[in-house]
Amino acid sequence: MDFGEVLQEIAAEAPQHVGRGKVASYIPALAKIPSEKFGMAVHTVDGVTFSVGDALEPFSIQSISKVFSLMLAMRIVGDELWERVGREPSGNAFNSLVQLEYEEGIPRNPFINAGALVVIDALVTMLHEAKICFLEFARGLAGDPYIAFDEIVAQSEDTHGHINKALVNFLKAYGNIENDIDVVLDAYFHHCSLAMNCAQLAHAFLPLANNGVSRSAEDSVLTARQARQVNSLMLTCGLYDAVGKFAYRVGLPAKSGVGGGIVAVVPGEMTIAVWSPELDDTGNSVMGTRALELFGQITQRSIF
Amino acid sequence: MDFGEVLQEIAAEAPQHVGRGKVASYIPALAKIPSEKFGMAVHTVDGVTFSVGDALEPFSIQSISKVFSLMLAMRIVGDELWERVGREPSGNAFNSLVQLEYEEGIPRNPFINAGALVVIDALVTMLHEAKICFLEFARGLAGDPYIAFDEIVAQSEDTHGHINKALVNFLKAYGNIENDIDVVLDAYFHHCSLAMNCAQLAHAFLPLANNGVSRSAEDSVLTARQARQVNSLMLTCGLYDAVGKFAYRVGLPAKSGVGGGIVAVVPGEMTIAVWSPELDDTGNSVMGTRALELFGQITQRSIF
Amino acid sequence: MDFGEVLQEIAAEAPQHVGRGKVASYIPALAKIPSEKFGMAVHTVDGVTFSVGDALEPFSIQSISKVFSLMLAMRIVGDELWERVGREPSGNAFNSLVQLEYEEGIPRNPFINAGALVVIDALVTMLHEAKICFLEFARGLAGDPYIAFDEIVAQSEDTHGHINKALVNFLKAYGNIENDIDVVLDAYFHHCSLAMNCAQLAHAFLPLANNGVSRSAEDSVLTARQARQVNSLMLTCGLYDAVGKFAYRVGLPAKSGVGGGIVAVVPGEMTIAVWSPELDDTGNSVMGTRALELFGQITQRSIF
Amino acid sequence: MDFGEVLQEIAAEAPQHVGRGKVASYIPALAKIPSEKFGMAVHTVDGVTFSVGDALEPFSIQSISKVFSLMLAMRIVGDELWERVGREPSGNAFNSLVQLEYEEGIPRNPFINAGALVVIDALVTMLHEAKICFLEFARGLAGDPYIAFDEIVAQSEDTHGHINKALVNFLKAYGNIENDIDVVLDAYFHHCSLAMNCAQLAHAFLPLANNGVSRSAEDSVLTARQARQVNSLMLTCGLYDAVGKFAYRVGLPAKSGVGGGIVAVVPGEMTIAVWSPELDDTGNSVMGTRALELFGQITQRSIF
Repeated sequence: MDFGEVLQEIAAEAPQHVGRGKVASYIPALAKIPSEKFGMAVHTVDGVTFSVGDALEPFSIQSISKVFSLMLAMRIVGDELWERVGREPSGNAFNSLVQLEYEEGIPRNPFINAGALVVIDALVTMLHEAKICFLEFARGLAGDPYIAFDEIVAQSEDTHGHINKALVNFLKAYGNIENDIDVVLDAYFHHCSLAMNCAQLAHAFLPLANNGVSRSAEDSVLTARQARQVNSLMLTCGLYDAVGKFAYRVGLPAKSGVGGGIVAVVPGEMTIAVWSPELDDTGNSVMGTRALELFGQITQRSIF
Repeated sequence: MDFGEVLQEIAAEAPQHVGRGKVASYIPALAKIPSEKFGMAVHTVDGVTFSVGDALEPFSIQSISKVFSLMLAMRIVGDELWERVGREPSGNAFNSLVQLEYEEGIPRNPFINAGALVVIDALVTMLHEAKICFLEFARGLAGDPYIAFDEIVAQSEDTHGHINKALVNFLKAYGNIENDIDVVLDAYFHHCSLAMNCAQLAHAFLPLANNGVSRSAEDSVLTARQARQVNSLMLTCGLYDAVGKFAYRVGLPAKSGVGGGIVAVVPGEMTIAVWSPELDDTGNSVMGTRALELFGQITQRSIF
Repeated sequence: MDFGEVLQEIAAEAPQHVGRGKVASYIPALAKIPSEKFGMAVHTVDGVTFSVGDALEPFSIQSISKVFSLMLAMRIVGDELWERVGREPSGNAFNSLVQLEYEEGIPRNPFINAGALVVIDALVTMLHEAKICFLEFARGLAGDPYIAFDEIVAQSEDTHGHINKALVNFLKAYGNIENDIDVVLDAYFHHCSLAMNCAQLAHAFLPLANNGVSRSAEDSVLTARQARQVNSLMLTCGLYDAVGKFAYRVGLPAKSGVGGGIVAVVPGEMTIAVWSPELDDTGNSVMGTRALELFGQITQRSIF
Repeated sequence: MDFGEVLQEIAAEAPQHVGRGKVASYIPALAKIPSEKFGMAVHTVDGVTFSVGDALEPFSIQSISKVFSLMLAMRIVGDELWERVGREPSGNAFNSLVQLEYEEGIPRNPFINAGALVVIDALVTMLHEAKICFLEFARGLAGDPYIAFDEIVAQSEDTHGHINKALVNFLKAYGNIENDIDVVLDAYFHHCSLAMNCAQLAHAFLPLANNGVSRSAEDSVLTARQARQVNSLMLTCGLYDAVGKFAYRVGLPAKSGVGGGIVAVVPGEMTIAVWSPELDDTGNSVMGTRALELFGQITQRSIF
């Protein structure tokens, strides 16, 4: 099948969805992105990349970075991580404090903000320069040493990050943050600020479709089992409070970010990254979701 | 691969897990089931059945019946069903009223009790003799006309069903029950009381592994797309408040019941039914979960 | 001070508040009451009654009956009652199931619906004909043997009482209802249906202002201490989710009902009953609250 | 009546309650206070003080300071304050974030931590040196210019104040904090650290029993109406999640702190301050509550 043609067919539909969502506006750096941006890239386990539209334009990956944080923590922390963070969908908004209070400081999963803060705290405990190690890890996954944090975005997240500051203080009160709050927040805001394009994201997620093996590194990033585990966590927890509807419509493990990106995995075959900045009311890209649904329908791909 | 040998290997491990959970005790008919019961059956899309242990002994399928209710409703009600019930994991216990209140009478998904009550109400609205139609539908799926409700269990559920009575009254107060409360409850308690064995359950779930086609009926029970949708709902909502951990450990769509049964689907290949009455604190069979985990590891099956 | 003049001054202000609230509409018998009804009565511990407007027209006392249920239970059950029901404001709507779930079947106080259902269940356990005993108790308090249940209202409450049916089933599931659900609900709906006028209500509440002594009976309905305890419960729990604002504005113990009645107590001096059917969004009478605020300001009465 | 004898009678009972509660231990400065401390002071509107035990030993007044913050805000901010903070009991623990999330950043009342943070933010907005103004205000109320913040306690609160930091960040996210977070927190921690003794506290609360008039200042601190309003807020919101039971047992407006102090008001007559460091599980002084209950019973004082 010619995935290039499929991507073109999908891209042709993108313009008609402009205006159906809203670009994230909580920080200026995100609010100024034009609504009509659309890029999509497929990367197969055979090493072929297909891309269309703005697939080479970097954007703020935001919560997609939580997958990289988790992968790194699974490598260096191991199963002890799960004593500090759960593996269940939250059934609530991604930044809810309510559930955290009822569950006494154990975040429901590593993809809600509270969970990512705990994961990053675990990295800070284990690594000398956690922020730099994370950056190098992401560069290695993407096979591109020029990937960088967007310092303006990171600074802006800090300025507008009162909810995250509330979360990390709350976690600290329950004893589930080991390091200095400012160090953890600084790492968190930087992780979220990572700027990548669709082609790089598809490349970086390849181990999750390829039994844990990254083609660029030609070695194992994760074990095959860990790769499946990350996929399972993305499927059950990767799309905020829309995991069920996304699984129903698209049927692939995926992680979204409020920058408008979504990266999906077809186990054993390929990864798919898409970018379109307008979000629906659950915080997921409107056209990103539609593009993945179309891709699945046309190519008959679904894990179900 | 010889699935028969795999099942024997798994069955050999079963005795060492006895005592790690607790048999459901809220009704006498369930409480009296011996802890050491263990049965397992695999049914392939080629029509071959493998089974081991107590795989031919009927047990109370309880919430597994919610999958049959949903399949029937998807056939005869269609997408309108989703205006009355959500498709998101609940993040709460299966019989919680809390979420229902915050979400004003729209249950989170069709597999929590409140959601199944709405699905059954929709069936009662559409069908003349909904309870009988449901029974005939289950018989057709299992290819066995002798499958029956266990009237003692149904009566017992009624006697001890105060939470379900609370739920249905609450749904009625929000306008999300159309029919007489007693009729809906009677159907609900009977659906849950269905007695089936592992071989019948594996047979009945086959359409979900086979693009919607039942081999016994040799016609489509669901469209291929609907079959995938049911699988996605099982994966994200099928195991009460343990969907994430189950997906992480087992990696297959599945539905459990407090009778100790779990039925899982390997799309395109087979269905697997397992029964072991002791439950963990999330209400899922301890050895049932372990058996499916082992089956996946040995046969290298996972949707991820 | 001439309380008659005070009442006339207050009544003169009533017409300008018509239209600021909404008459309860969940049952037809309440919905048809004209918005402009206004009555008010004061009954002093010296035995003098002052009244104005529609003070002699019976209306549905609804939740005001919960004070009579509680007084009767304090007489015949005693302090054991507090093992089954709390004494704290709920911080939630009067019919919330959420709090009940978190607190495992112990209602927060006797004036929310769940709490009143438990109080009535305790009466049903202790009394042979609880409903009749309650009616006789209310008649005795009011000094009027003709006070009666409004069977049309009681029937209507039953027909539209899904939330209350949900509550009582939920309480039963937690083991906090001892008697048959239908008997408890029947008593509950009848208590709420009691029809009384402002003069009768002021008369019936007199023991709460008079150290527990009813003038008509010339004997102790409650001990002086119990009377103070009932007053404290009214102050902290008697006005649904508006107890704080009511105490701030009016400064008197009081109990309201969705029929538009409010009865307040000036300890040691008098009782005040007011009726105006339009409710604010917390379920309390708009003009009833205003009338009591004015009464307090003009007469300089407040417990604070 | 000789209040001195009453206090002696109460003090005689204090030793037998030692060991029934737990001294607050979340900061070292509180944890080291001996359990057996007991002091009590009465201050009448005629200007007479009675005291017993450790009534002249300063202790950390903690949340009792919230009454002073509120009084100052009512003077200089006025009714606009109520647009930013509610006047209803919370029905939850004093530092709960849950309710704050459901109610979108408007704290339920000025006596829970979140509410006090908003009150203090309002003071910071209006006053040039809010912290100093507050201290001078408290000194004026107590008639003692030597009252001071305990800098060790304030520093310790800061070190262990993660929940309060979470709260203030959360409020800021909802736009309900106008000033720099660190300034607000610094003021909050200092207010709580105020060290006063029972005699000073009874003196400082006198305006609430005396129509707003402080004897020492011989002028109005509040209007008579405002004094009543503060009393109503203490009665409905002043004892964390035990307001109902306290009103039932004691029947007086009061405010407690985790330092073991409680100050109560008998409107028109006197104020009563008591100190005993052991707390019950709602955070209120065990012997402090008992002492006030005894005082009410012996002297027949209750607002109900």
